[in-house]
Amino acid sequence: MNSNLNKDEQDKMTNRRQFLKGAGAAALGAGMISRVSLAALPESPSSMSATMEPPPEPTSGRWYNPVVTLNGWSLPWRMKNGWKEFHLTAEAVEREIAPGMTARLWGYNGQSPGPTIECVEGDKVRIFVTNRLPEHTTVHWHGIFLAAGMDGVGGLSQPHIPPGKTFVYEFELKQSGTFMYHPHADEMVQMAMGMMGSLVVHPKDPELHKVDRDFCFLMSAYDIDPGTMTAKVNTMLDFNLWTWNSRVFPGIDHLVCREGDRVRVRMGNLTMTNHPIHLHGLNFEVAGTDGGWVRPEARWPEVTSDVAIGQMRAIEFDADAPGDWAMHCHKSHHTMNPMGHSVPNMIGVDQREVQQSIAKLLPGYMVMGERGMADMGEMTMPLPANTLPMMTGEGQFGPIEMGGMFTVLKIRADQKANDYTDPGWYDFPAGTVAYEVDLS
Amino acid sequence: MNSNLNKDEQDKMTNRRQFLKGAGAAALGAGMISRVSLAALPESPSSMSATMEPPPEPTSGRWYNPVVTLNGWSLPWRMKNGWKEFHLTAEAVEREIAPGMTARLWGYNGQSPGPTIECVEGDKVRIFVTNRLPEHTTVHWHGIFLAAGMDGVGGLSQPHIPPGKTFVYEFELKQSGTFMYHPHADEMVQMAMGMMGSLVVHPKDPELHKVDRDFCFLMSAYDIDPGTMTAKVNTMLDFNLWTWNSRVFPGIDHLVCREGDRVRVRMGNLTMTNHPIHLHGLNFEVAGTDGGWVRPEARWPEVTSDVAIGQMRAIEFDADAPGDWAMHCHKSHHTMNPMGHSVPNMIGVDQREVQQSIAKLLPGYMVMGERGMADMGEMTMPLPANTLPMMTGEGQFGPIEMGGMFTVLKIRADQKANDYTDPGWYDFPAGTVAYEVDLS
Amino acid sequence: MNSNLNKDEQDKMTNRRQFLKGAGAAALGAGMISRVSLAALPESPSSMSATMEPPPEPTSGRWYNPVVTLNGWSLPWRMKNGWKEFHLTAEAVEREIAPGMTARLWGYNGQSPGPTIECVEGDKVRIFVTNRLPEHTTVHWHGIFLAAGMDGVGGLSQPHIPPGKTFVYEFELKQSGTFMYHPHADEMVQMAMGMMGSLVVHPKDPELHKVDRDFCFLMSAYDIDPGTMTAKVNTMLDFNLWTWNSRVFPGIDHLVCREGDRVRVRMGNLTMTNHPIHLHGLNFEVAGTDGGWVRPEARWPEVTSDVAIGQMRAIEFDADAPGDWAMHCHKSHHTMNPMGHSVPNMIGVDQREVQQSIAKLLPGYMVMGERGMADMGEMTMPLPANTLPMMTGEGQFGPIEMGGMFTVLKIRADQKANDYTDPGWYDFPAGTVAYEVDLS
Repeated sequence: MNSNLNKDEQDKMTNRRQFLKGAGAAALGAGMISRVSLAALPESPSSMSATMEPPPEPTSGRWYNPVVTLNGWSLPWRMKNGWKEFHLTAEAVEREIAPGMTARLWGYNGQSPGPTIECVEGDKVRIFVTNRLPEHTTVHWHGIFLAAGMDGVGGLSQPHIPPGKTFVYEFELKQSGTFMYHPHADEMVQMAMGMMGSLVVHPKDPELHKVDRDFCFLMSAYDIDPGTMTAKVNTMLDFNLWTWNSRVFPGIDHLVCREGDRVRVRMGNLTMTNHPIHLHGLNFEVAGTDGGWVRPEARWPEVTSDVAIGQMRAIEFDADAPGDWAMHCHKSHHTMNPMGHSVPNMIGVDQREVQQSIAKLLPGYMVMGERGMADMGEMTMPLPANTLPMMTGEGQFGPIEMGGMFTVLKIRADQKANDYTDPGWYDFPAGTVAYEVDLS
Repeated sequence: MNSNLNKDEQDKMTNRRQFLKGAGAAALGAGMISRVSLAALPESPSSMSATMEPPPEPTSGRWYNPVVTLNGWSLPWRMKNGWKEFHLTAEAVEREIAPGMTARLWGYNGQSPGPTIECVEGDKVRIFVTNRLPEHTTVHWHGIFLAAGMDGVGGLSQPHIPPGKTFVYEFELKQSGTFMYHPHADEMVQMAMGMMGSLVVHPKDPELHKVDRDFCFLMSAYDIDPGTMTAKVNTMLDFNLWTWNSRVFPGIDHLVCREGDRVRVRMGNLTMTNHPIHLHGLNFEVAGTDGGWVRPEARWPEVTSDVAIGQMRAIEFDADAPGDWAMHCHKSHHTMNPMGHSVPNMIGVDQREVQQSIAKLLPGYMVMGERGMADMGEMTMPLPANTLPMMTGEGQFGPIEMGGMFTVLKIRADQKANDYTDPGWYDFPAGTVAYEVDLS
Repeated sequence: MNSNLNKDEQDKMTNRRQFLKGAGAAALGAGMISRVSLAALPESPSSMSATMEPPPEPTSGRWYNPVVTLNGWSLPWRMKNGWKEFHLTAEAVEREIAPGMTARLWGYNGQSPGPTIECVEGDKVRIFVTNRLPEHTTVHWHGIFLAAGMDGVGGLSQPHIPPGKTFVYEFELKQSGTFMYHPHADEMVQMAMGMMGSLVVHPKDPELHKVDRDFCFLMSAYDIDPGTMTAKVNTMLDFNLWTWNSRVFPGIDHLVCREGDRVRVRMGNLTMTNHPIHLHGLNFEVAGTDGGWVRPEARWPEVTSDVAIGQMRAIEFDADAPGDWAMHCHKSHHTMNPMGHSVPNMIGVDQREVQQSIAKLLPGYMVMGERGMADMGEMTMPLPANTLPMMTGEGQFGPIEMGGMFTVLKIRADQKANDYTDPGWYDFPAGTVAYEVDLS
């Protein structure tokens, strides 16, 4: 929700306008807070930032403990005659996937995913949806109990929202929990382009299911050729960008907690395959799904939760182990960025002669992989523009050699209650790190 | 189980006989109720219909509340000296996948999947299996507790059933629940060709696990090139027909319930990937698996159940929300029919010049996708024969733009107890449908 | 741990040395028990065998009931000042995948997977890791509660272990359960090459979670072209060898139990896709995960457990049904070995003319698949060297037509308590096997 743009951002804006124009959309000025010219509608604020916005306390309506959207923000509302009114705008957006790469996607209110919608059990909610896309759309409120005509399935439960039009959804929230919103119109295309957002309904009684930290994100996958910016929309399996909130490592926010915190992480999956989300150093329980809260006696202790497509999982744990703990999808090709998957295995192949031959033609050519791929984590290879290295990231002990769905849970003794600022790398106590044996 | 054929059906029969002949099978007349010439064997009735047959009450043996097989039927039996005798015939079949497309598959008793076998805990069951295929087969009774020699694993627990021969399986049912049958011989081929069926064992006490509506289906996937009829048998991942009981939307039966019904849906997966089955408007619990009934305190509230391969899930819910509710696999390429997956993303690309150039050569040529893919849900493109559109279906508000594993749960206040007839689209009460904002 | 080599094995050794040399590793003599020259380090014993070693009772430290590692062994330790000291060596290895095929992988202590590490809740454990690979590595102790600096994530929690160096990990076990170890450095490559091992922590009180038989294995997948020996390391989905402990059917050990035994099978998944593990004849519960023990009231009855990547499942059942019971992954292309997936479906195609034409040029040429693929389970086709047939295995009733992740659970009334010897095929009582109907 930054309203000031620097030079680089202005340049991006120019390209972006062309993208939008090419797509035929009558777009709002992007990257700026929109100024609604129609008094009848609530404002539809827009963000061009992929930086997490510290969660604001609610300023009207029932109180709740706000969630932290990784690399995202929550949508403001206005109260009107007892209704909470939100305004989503479906539109073409630019999303920084990680520093060094920006994608042209479709989303809501300037970003993909769209802003998190937070409300409270019992709220009467009215959501205006303006369609600034070049084709029709709808919004389905995944997991919400509502009248069939508010369910958002184009053709079945409502007419599609044509380009340029604004529709209204209304429902009273009969439940609390973890939900999401996404189109149910030209669905494969619109989700492959990044249209989705989290929808959190807090319990009416704030003591119920109370936690100290409450994070949320959605998983999406994109197929963007190296050197290009636009996602392919017909890919079924071979995606090359596996994201949390349309971000990849090292662009995904860290999860910062105080030692002793009760922590919840709400995750939803809108890709084309399961994601087994693994947490190091701690075990956790699935405390809630998009179908409701799981009774305590039915919960399993886990370190990896397999989140299926169209499922949400709210995991909870006690942050009782200080340190930097990896949190990632356990499919190892989902913790990689694009490039390199068709490289043959050169392990054990002596390439020195080949290198010399090629280097005559291409000075600076280097061979890779004859001892493994770890080189790729530390070297700087020339990459096409707007392309991320396959393995990247740097920790305090060297290259982390990851990408995709990977981030770090940072548990510290000294974090202040409402401080979400990254505390930097963990300061390991002496003698607690794996060490080299001195055989001299 | 229709015994009368119209002209079109007779034409189909001729082709089908050639398919069977080419396959080398000494086939029974297809599409007709077979007339068993061997007095020693129970009849092996055959169906050529893909229309759901309203469930018949049992006429002999213990009473039970019959299941509704989507686009299918239950196999009759005869009682003989205290044994329930069924007769399955493994054979080449033709299955209408949806209106407009028929596939040449292998199945049982005229259809793929084969008929549902229903029996009751405590029953002594004898199942004759006649092999009319060109190669050997067996039948494995997935999930059933039985003697090891009745388990149906070719080579391991029994000799294979050669073409033309009839084998007998016998077991006494020690359990109730949701099971299936399929070959355990040349398994990848025979399941890729559609050989499978549901097997439901009702509790001895009909008050146990009692529901008002009890639906069942199996999930299977086929790889049939557009314009052809026969499934490829070596595909591992890239299937293009994702089916429930070998049917795709809009060919899958609707699930019709009365408001207030307790409803069970039994689903099994014999494809090559998980299917996260999502229900709109309601939440549900997994009440049973192919391993037994789940104790109530261990159940989770869900809106999406990830059904793994070789698993069955009996989900239950209270149909307390009237309306038309989508029910589908949440992998968005599983709610699509064949064609179009290799189409490049034309979003944002102005194709007018290209269109003009090509239209000179190919009058009527039209470009697609420059604004998204939603056009495909409503336009009529020329398709190869025997091929379904990628996105199709029409609701009361316009194109539904789906295919594959998608159908509608229809909950009505006014349905009669034993009436499974489709009630048509929901009559929405005034003011309950998402509506356009009038900004004038 | 055999120290004697026959001629064939010596030939293999020569090739293996070249592989190791090509890879640049300063390798220990392979296949022999290594003789540690450094008195300060515990011995790092090595195995060249893929045969299951009957579990030895612990000879020092707390008593426990040892696990049986399928086609594997448990790593000895030494006690030193109250610490259990183990020594793992990461190195290039040769693994017999099944009789007839050997793969060049990376592993630990001579094999892939590495030896099982067994310890007891409360143990203080010190693990030396020597890196004999051509690139750096680390070891992550998946699921273990430990200090963040012992967690093994290269760059994040420790410096990488360079080639030739030895690092030390230390932790005190606060939990019991089923865990694993694997690298967290160049992760996709090192796991695609087979680096992993089981890690079992027994309860301090041996009466807790007590079973009679306790099996364990890890699932891994390889992509090795027919006729070659080295796994490709960039494959994402299209693996052709789906293994349990780097073995495929018919090379996977049988699970031998006495009738009436309480049995546990601990399984972990480090492939790139879920494996739904199906057991015939019995149902089971998931009693434990890598996050802890599942409380009894939360367990589900199952016959198929979908093991996600980065998950472990300890299933338990009562072996109350004597017989030979198939146990396998239910994805049917995971119970196949390489070759044949691109073969077109010839079902129903009369190939006699084609055969005659080709046979003139290629005497002995035979056509396949016109009646299905079952022929492939029994015929001997010429295969490239070091390549397994797609469908293979022979039972007492004929070809089993399987491969990959398939083995047999053998429950016998007459097995002695500590006898893990394969008892041969089941002796079926008269009249308990599916039989052919005599219609004469």
